[in-house]
Amino acid sequence: MSFLKKPVTRHLATGAVLAGAGVAIWATPALAQEAEVTAADVQTNLDNVFVLVAAVLVIFMQAGFALVEAGLTRAKSVANIMMKNLMDFAAGAIAFFAVGFAIAFGAGNDFFGTEGWFLGDGAFTYGTLTVPVFFVFQVAFAATAATIVSGAMAERTKFKSYFLYSIVISSVIYPVVVHWNWGGGWLAQLSTPFHDFAGSTMVHMTGGVAALMGAMILGPRIGKYGSDGKPRAIPGHNIPFAILGTFILLVGWYGFNAGSELAADGAIGGIAVTTTLAACAGAIAAMLAIWMKSGKPDVAMTANGMLAGLVGVTAGTAAVSPIGALIIGACAGVIVVFAVFFFDRIKIDDPVGAISVHGVCGAFGTICVGLFATEDTDFWQQGLFYGGGASQLISQIIGVVAVGLFVALASGILFLVIKATVGLRVSAEEEIEGLDVLEHGTSGYGHDTLAGAGAGAGSSSASATGSSTASARV
Amino acid sequence: MSFLKKPVTRHLATGAVLAGAGVAIWATPALAQEAEVTAADVQTNLDNVFVLVAAVLVIFMQAGFALVEAGLTRAKSVANIMMKNLMDFAAGAIAFFAVGFAIAFGAGNDFFGTEGWFLGDGAFTYGTLTVPVFFVFQVAFAATAATIVSGAMAERTKFKSYFLYSIVISSVIYPVVVHWNWGGGWLAQLSTPFHDFAGSTMVHMTGGVAALMGAMILGPRIGKYGSDGKPRAIPGHNIPFAILGTFILLVGWYGFNAGSELAADGAIGGIAVTTTLAACAGAIAAMLAIWMKSGKPDVAMTANGMLAGLVGVTAGTAAVSPIGALIIGACAGVIVVFAVFFFDRIKIDDPVGAISVHGVCGAFGTICVGLFATEDTDFWQQGLFYGGGASQLISQIIGVVAVGLFVALASGILFLVIKATVGLRVSAEEEIEGLDVLEHGTSGYGHDTLAGAGAGAGSSSASATGSSTASARV
Amino acid sequence: MSFLKKPVTRHLATGAVLAGAGVAIWATPALAQEAEVTAADVQTNLDNVFVLVAAVLVIFMQAGFALVEAGLTRAKSVANIMMKNLMDFAAGAIAFFAVGFAIAFGAGNDFFGTEGWFLGDGAFTYGTLTVPVFFVFQVAFAATAATIVSGAMAERTKFKSYFLYSIVISSVIYPVVVHWNWGGGWLAQLSTPFHDFAGSTMVHMTGGVAALMGAMILGPRIGKYGSDGKPRAIPGHNIPFAILGTFILLVGWYGFNAGSELAADGAIGGIAVTTTLAACAGAIAAMLAIWMKSGKPDVAMTANGMLAGLVGVTAGTAAVSPIGALIIGACAGVIVVFAVFFFDRIKIDDPVGAISVHGVCGAFGTICVGLFATEDTDFWQQGLFYGGGASQLISQIIGVVAVGLFVALASGILFLVIKATVGLRVSAEEEIEGLDVLEHGTSGYGHDTLAGAGAGAGSSSASATGSSTASARV
Repeated sequence: MSFLKKPVTRHLATGAVLAGAGVAIWATPALAQEAEVTAADVQTNLDNVFVLVAAVLVIFMQAGFALVEAGLTRAKSVANIMMKNLMDFAAGAIAFFAVGFAIAFGAGNDFFGTEGWFLGDGAFTYGTLTVPVFFVFQVAFAATAATIVSGAMAERTKFKSYFLYSIVISSVIYPVVVHWNWGGGWLAQLSTPFHDFAGSTMVHMTGGVAALMGAMILGPRIGKYGSDGKPRAIPGHNIPFAILGTFILLVGWYGFNAGSELAADGAIGGIAVTTTLAACAGAIAAMLAIWMKSGKPDVAMTANGMLAGLVGVTAGTAAVSPIGALIIGACAGVIVVFAVFFFDRIKIDDPVGAISVHGVCGAFGTICVGLFATEDTDFWQQGLFYGGGASQLISQIIGVVAVGLFVALASGILFLVIKATVGLRVSAEEEIEGLDVLEHGTSGYGHDTLAGAGAGAGSSSASATGSSTASARV
Repeated sequence: MSFLKKPVTRHLATGAVLAGAGVAIWATPALAQEAEVTAADVQTNLDNVFVLVAAVLVIFMQAGFALVEAGLTRAKSVANIMMKNLMDFAAGAIAFFAVGFAIAFGAGNDFFGTEGWFLGDGAFTYGTLTVPVFFVFQVAFAATAATIVSGAMAERTKFKSYFLYSIVISSVIYPVVVHWNWGGGWLAQLSTPFHDFAGSTMVHMTGGVAALMGAMILGPRIGKYGSDGKPRAIPGHNIPFAILGTFILLVGWYGFNAGSELAADGAIGGIAVTTTLAACAGAIAAMLAIWMKSGKPDVAMTANGMLAGLVGVTAGTAAVSPIGALIIGACAGVIVVFAVFFFDRIKIDDPVGAISVHGVCGAFGTICVGLFATEDTDFWQQGLFYGGGASQLISQIIGVVAVGLFVALASGILFLVIKATVGLRVSAEEEIEGLDVLEHGTSGYGHDTLAGAGAGAGSSSASATGSSTASARV
Repeated sequence: MSFLKKPVTRHLATGAVLAGAGVAIWATPALAQEAEVTAADVQTNLDNVFVLVAAVLVIFMQAGFALVEAGLTRAKSVANIMMKNLMDFAAGAIAFFAVGFAIAFGAGNDFFGTEGWFLGDGAFTYGTLTVPVFFVFQVAFAATAATIVSGAMAERTKFKSYFLYSIVISSVIYPVVVHWNWGGGWLAQLSTPFHDFAGSTMVHMTGGVAALMGAMILGPRIGKYGSDGKPRAIPGHNIPFAILGTFILLVGWYGFNAGSELAADGAIGGIAVTTTLAACAGAIAAMLAIWMKSGKPDVAMTANGMLAGLVGVTAGTAAVSPIGALIIGACAGVIVVFAVFFFDRIKIDDPVGAISVHGVCGAFGTICVGLFATEDTDFWQQGLFYGGGASQLISQIIGVVAVGLFVALASGILFLVIKATVGLRVSAEEEIEGLDVLEHGTSGYGHDTLAGAGAGAGSSSASATGSSTASARV
């Protein structure tokens, strides 16, 4: 008996069923494949496939952020920073599902949306995308905004407090900002609408400004500033993690930027080109800048330069030329070097440079749209450097300032409330010991507990069990 | 002379040729692009692209499993566990190509297929997919089922024996189970057919039950139980690896679940949503459960909670609502915590929690289809909690019990035969020393052999060069 | 007020605009979606989406190369090797954008192209792809060729010199080779055209031969050869990195090979199958070969076997059968083992085996097309083993020899010029100390600087800060 002839007994392919089941929110009727499939139907399916794949790439960025932050901080709190990144996504996604998505994209007023709670009635989608595909793409963005902050607050923030922050930024702060622009709010209604294609401001600067407020309110790590008040370098513990994370972020950024087209059309290639060139220019410019400044091509700074270039081009990725992208990326790479030194000097301790990369370069990149946009379109005006007027530039500045102020205020209040209630910072003892053991009950890097000296020979951490004092400590 | 005008001299694009070459198995005639391409042709191409990309994501999960298992075990056997994961894929894919695919999907009887050996005559495909695309997707699944076991048997299993196991599960045990359901066998022919959309039972519980048998037959690691019989924690050596692996598994799972639709239609977005929410709910629930139980938000357990949520939703990912997915994921996250403690207590030593994550939550998730399916379709019946009868629930229980018994029996016999012949477990000396050096002739983490103490300062393994002879070598 | 009804105020979807803006290079007119979308339009969009996703997978391979190289070399130069991999991409992409792409694909003569500088006038594309999508795919390939070399020259090459090399290979050497074949040059015009589907020769052998010249001109690492002239093993420091890198390369290779179809048609599945089987056969064959030779299944060699299988099948991935792919992969896996020992014996020190994997197996795989191609097509002739004549085989040998000689000459001159000017090799002191601190001012693995011995207990590098007792222990 051959089952090959009876595909109907298989229940692998349920698409047509779902599509036909009248769950209009979940699948457009056009997707049913039984009858005459039209080219428009297939384009719809293609748009959804493309944006879903892009969403998966953006979700992969969570791993990139986790590794960059882990690599650029110390081993004794590595489990804590990984956990915070895991929770950014876990808590953030559920919060965004419950309320954030409705506030961001639901119909409402110029400032926030009020429909589509829990993906229910009124849940919005865009163009040919189904609601779930649009949601998955957007939830990945919300998680990105949230996760930026963990790096700047690393090595001294209570886990519980960070968890609370993570829920609030994903459910309220980020969604409100999104509504202003992508949700059709007031920034989208300026006479020359604010343009932030994939989120230099909406996502990165939002995260960067929240990171700034968090780092300010927390204060610097113990030992960061000497008795002379001079900053001391606290190098990260794992450069390979940081660079692997940077590569993962680069890869994910293709989903972030090209996916923001929200359709599989002819623009996605150009977006990928500007994304590539800005990333590369940022890395090289940062390397050269730090090389000239300090005498060595610092690796972590170069990686941050690549991320700075990516953040910088994100707003204008569809609007600028390849040469424009090179310039934007290179400038962002130089800016990030000086910004890192600047925040160090004014005693805002950002262990991974998140404020500089995402905050400063996010603002810079957004403004660059007003300078480098090559032509007038329905979505943006030609930039100043290409002979356009200043109208787009002014709108960009308005958007940057407004979002910056709102996020600074909202996240500042949030962190102060947390500080006043559950507390924001761990004890000095815990900070010195590392957060892993006292917050999570475990070291990030384990001992080979069965090992005598011999068995430990192959272990990176065997020596940690080495002296009896060390063993006794933990 | 311009070559731009002579694309025919280029041999990059060979698709049309292959398609037209009459190799019907390898490419459907509909794919030729010379003539009038129809919308149905393009949908066919899109389906194949989507499932191929999904297959690549599932193959990426191999890296995720390797990292989770490496991270949650000790450094002294890390090369061994990486090698086992590499071989799961290498040996498993060839075994599945040679015989597994035919047993799983070939025409035959209600219990196993008998056509399509080596992708030859009678090789089956589904819907619009070409045989090779369908095969690549399925081979990735087979490798997933196989790789689950390595974690539960970590740190004490002979490499050679594991290699043999890996070939048998990929060529026989997993394929038989698949034939029962996805291959159109007896589970697919129940009056209310068993429904396991992407493999909570077929893939994960199969791997989990084999893991249980392996861990039981092996016995616990030396030192796992004190002289009082109480379990002792043997912490893993690298939490960043474990969390990176978890993120990679999350990313791969979008391919696993959405790709199981086997077509690029309107259902894939909903699947991605339920996958996301269950993963997040699982992580949070496990974190809260262990927090309440032990007083700390344990990182490894939280990661296992995310995996538990993913395993749990896999069966019903297309059938349940977002809220249903949240509930399933949260329950799986709590279950995994208690299951881990349970197996610890009954002296089944599973270093990474694979039995709990994949076995227990696989069974739980499969049964949940009978509870949470929101409506009747051609492929599943409405669940009990939504007002449906118990018919789907009964079929789900039948499937779980039948697959569980078969896999327990088959893998139990396999491990016992291996134990009686080549042996299953390494010597006590080797186990204490770590498997890397004695099984593979190398440490997982190397020494910086050229370094004196100073040069080694930046090295994770510098201390391994500690002895004066090693230092003197330089 | 509902914004849901006013999508025109949103500026997320700019595709139609770009497509309609007359920037013909950047988007084909067919992509506009306003009017009646045809099936051919959708196929065009699908082709572009597929190749862009493939390009992203290939770019991800940069992370794989970085990890394999980092894992197989020593900890004291790990930041340096990660940095070189980052710069391969950053500098290489800009160089390829500026001049390489024009030389490779631009109209010109039989040896190099002369149009399309900076993606400007005359920038070439293929089939239905837009220029930017084609470029992004090709730039990823250029970066792959460049990055192969860093492994063979690891642990002793000046960063500045490597940076210069990287620019030259991406802007000139690799593009010239590409022009000969994929650019329609003289190799594409042989009476039986040379066939290298995805780059066994064009990409891998080019990288491998440049690696050979680099390693020869540099000379071996200090300590690699004893006073008796016998090679000594210098094991890598992190097997998990090496295996993770291998998995990432495997995943990326699906983009590398299937994407080289440059269209989303019926051939991509078969390519994925041959890619999978060759990778797996290579891993198993290398494992068995080293097992027989040295008595143990060495992990790093097995990983190199998988890569060897992948390199080997890359030329013929679309032309050979699954069984052919198994044979090619298995042979490559055995070859790589013997090649590694061979180069060790003739005193060419290649720390990661790049010359053997990419150079030797690249040549081998290219020649295999002349043996294993199953049938005559417009793009290749049937191979000798399938009853075809020797015409394809002869062309393959011509291509391998010509490319090999050209790359050896060009890269040899390049390295000698660099050696004579800025210098190629670091000082002996720096090499012994490790390149990280002296070249980049930082260790790859950091100290927990605030920690006493106790706080460092959870750290992988705690021992580096070590007490003498800890050092003495191991």
